[in-house]
Amino acid sequence: MPEQSHTPLRPPVAILSIGSEVVDGRIVNTNAAWLAQQLLSAGFLPSLITSCRDIPEEILDTLTFLSQHAPFIITSGGLGPTTDDLTRQSIASFVGRELILSEEELGRLKSRFRKRGRKFDHANSIQVHFPEGSTVIPNPSGTAPGFITELKDGTLLYSLPGVPRELREMTTATVLPHLLHQSLGQLLVPRSKVFHLFGIPESEAGKKISHLELPQTITVGYRPHFPELEVRLETTESIDSDPLPDARTKLRSQLQQFIFSENRESSIPLVVHHLLLDQEKTIAVAESCTGGLLGKLLTNEPGSSKHFQGGFLTYTNALKRSLLGVREETLAQYGAVSPQTAQEMAVGARNKISCDIALSITGIAGPDGGTEEKPVGLFYVGLASEGYTTTLKFIIPSTREYIRRYAAYAALDSVRRFLLGLPYLGKAASPKLPF
Amino acid sequence: MPEQSHTPLRPPVAILSIGSEVVDGRIVNTNAAWLAQQLLSAGFLPSLITSCRDIPEEILDTLTFLSQHAPFIITSGGLGPTTDDLTRQSIASFVGRELILSEEELGRLKSRFRKRGRKFDHANSIQVHFPEGSTVIPNPSGTAPGFITELKDGTLLYSLPGVPRELREMTTATVLPHLLHQSLGQLLVPRSKVFHLFGIPESEAGKKISHLELPQTITVGYRPHFPELEVRLETTESIDSDPLPDARTKLRSQLQQFIFSENRESSIPLVVHHLLLDQEKTIAVAESCTGGLLGKLLTNEPGSSKHFQGGFLTYTNALKRSLLGVREETLAQYGAVSPQTAQEMAVGARNKISCDIALSITGIAGPDGGTEEKPVGLFYVGLASEGYTTTLKFIIPSTREYIRRYAAYAALDSVRRFLLGLPYLGKAASPKLPF
Repeated sequence: MPEQSHTPLRPPVAILSIGSEVVDGRIVNTNAAWLAQQLLSAGFLPSLITSCRDIPEEILDTLTFLSQHAPFIITSGGLGPTTDDLTRQSIASFVGRELILSEEELGRLKSRFRKRGRKFDHANSIQVHFPEGSTVIPNPSGTAPGFITELKDGTLLYSLPGVPRELREMTTATVLPHLLHQSLGQLLVPRSKVFHLFGIPESEAGKKISHLELPQTITVGYRPHFPELEVRLETTESIDSDPLPDARTKLRSQLQQFIFSENRESSIPLVVHHLLLDQEKTIAVAESCTGGLLGKLLTNEPGSSKHFQGGFLTYTNALKRSLLGVREETLAQYGAVSPQTAQEMAVGARNKISCDIALSITGIAGPDGGTEEKPVGLFYVGLASEGYTTTLKFIIPSTREYIRRYAAYAALDSVRRFLLGLPYLGKAASPKLPF
Repeated sequence: MPEQSHTPLRPPVAILSIGSEVVDGRIVNTNAAWLAQQLLSAGFLPSLITSCRDIPEEILDTLTFLSQHAPFIITSGGLGPTTDDLTRQSIASFVGRELILSEEELGRLKSRFRKRGRKFDHANSIQVHFPEGSTVIPNPSGTAPGFITELKDGTLLYSLPGVPRELREMTTATVLPHLLHQSLGQLLVPRSKVFHLFGIPESEAGKKISHLELPQTITVGYRPHFPELEVRLETTESIDSDPLPDARTKLRSQLQQFIFSENRESSIPLVVHHLLLDQEKTIAVAESCTGGLLGKLLTNEPGSSKHFQGGFLTYTNALKRSLLGVREETLAQYGAVSPQTAQEMAVGARNKISCDIALSITGIAGPDGGTEEKPVGLFYVGLASEGYTTTLKFIIPSTREYIRRYAAYAALDSVRRFLLGLPYLGKAASPKLPF
């Protein structure tokens, strides 16, 4: 095995999104964030992320600036056939070369039009002109190929169209492999460990993790997807002195009760979907304040008809009585937002719908309707199964949108805990059934 | 009235988002897009939108670059108390001034901690140090105030924290008014007209609008919020030769049937919510493939309990029969995805729930389960009211997520059309009721 004689680098890559619609805020720039993620995963360091308008002078200025700071630049946008697409002309003038027609790419473009039964308009041929000496980046899904141009100082410039689907495909198929090939021997791909958490705010998770005093060679990243939180431990240390296993053990010991998945991509609805399928359980719902969101989340995935039966949206007290059989005395004595009502809703749903588990939610989503005793953000989850019922109490002071979202996720997380035999997060509020 | 002696300008403003988490793609930069929108609406031109890591050298380089191109720069991020917050130090060194403690802001910060019953840690006092000669930008909701610094060449630098809520509040309260005051007499605020459309793809709307041959003084912007589309006509022409009224008439004449609102902020669920309230109508739902999304959208707004009663999620055929009374023969003869089933679902919901309007959806959300005759993306909407029923057919070939979203919006749009007496978008597919 050859000895490693130098610390591998993460070569910086600059990103330039070209287009007035990016700069003026008409669109949020998802291309740049996506590119940055891909570069990171491949061991590069996205350094300067910039955008500028479709104005040659601005494009030139920005390219000059970027080329002073990064050995690689990726541009997106401005390769189309219309008069406000000025990227290829600007790059040609930046490197002082002519735009040359590629007969090969012209043939491909014409055949593309033919196949679609469209007449070829010569305005389109600008899309197959490239700065002299460039390498073409094929675009299997669109009309504008990209190209790779080498600047005088050796900086490599990758130009891609701005259409997200095309940009992504071309990045994966051509740009990343080319970048990797160029950087062979100096790359250090980071390794990472992902944790998905529910039931703990980012600030609190951050505090607990900072107390772990993880080694400096580990970077901790937080990505909130409300109400879930993704925590990522990353290192570029070699596998021989890998600090990740130890860090993972430490993090688990502190946060175990909130971790619902350690897969790269995950979410509570997805985890519950697979648990229900694996355990061959069927489910039904009875929703009040969430108005249908719980059922919607349970049917996100194809194949959910194998577990999801259906349910009741009982927004009014009258329907809680007539559809679910919640007793008038219960509503009068404890109110619609109470453990008693949550429990009778779940039990009632299970009486009406043949299923293994019935799940109910009743709460105060606000912004009005709260009292000192029952504030906005209070909700109860009821769960009924064969010979088993429980109700759980949660309070999450927030906006209407967030309270409803949190309530639906808390209900699903409770099903997850029920199916796995784990302790619940919500405060047990199980009333004795009055019958 | 003073004569206008020069064409007013739209002064360019550069934006710099500082933070490694922005650059490496861990978060999508919504601050930049939001700032750009606000600047545009206030008559400024967002020019260079950049981001860089929390590295002083990178911050300085980027500021140097930006200050050469824009008379105003707004930075966000890096003003907090931790060791990776380096913006204030970098700016002080950029302008060659000391960081000075503001006793007034320190007092405010300490009292903030006191009020929350938290012990004041002196690590926090870095947040009330500002480059000598700066103007403080108050931060009513957080611990880090911003500041305005003038560079040697007269460029004004506005530094804001990266927390979106604080940044937005401070921009609205201080930064925009300050920018406007600085630019008095050279501003040209664009006027605009907004249209919200449903039922037409962006490409088709674009084609129709391009055929209108609107004057060159009008810019057309498109913002898709699937499945809705926002179209914006904008002009900086003076009110005396305003091209907007004529353009609006032309656009309406071409697209009237798809326009559901001309308010600045709008959505179909919001419009339907207000229509139901205004007409004092109550509504209930019967959902199959949308699994609860329709009910969720009908309860987005506070006060929806005035119109929304509840509903049924009947994902299985068994529940369509037992809960809604859909006839076994209907399911056997026409299938669950048929106008007949949609109609019996709506009528059944209205039999079980006292309401003015019952709305049903049944369809194939995919990705599996489609046939040649009933492809993925086919769905029916049923609407039942006193002495009235209709069913409408839609086909939207797309992903599961988009099909479900489109179906729920199409159902709501049908209610809107019913309440306003407008023709439906979906193809009428009303079967005769078999009873």
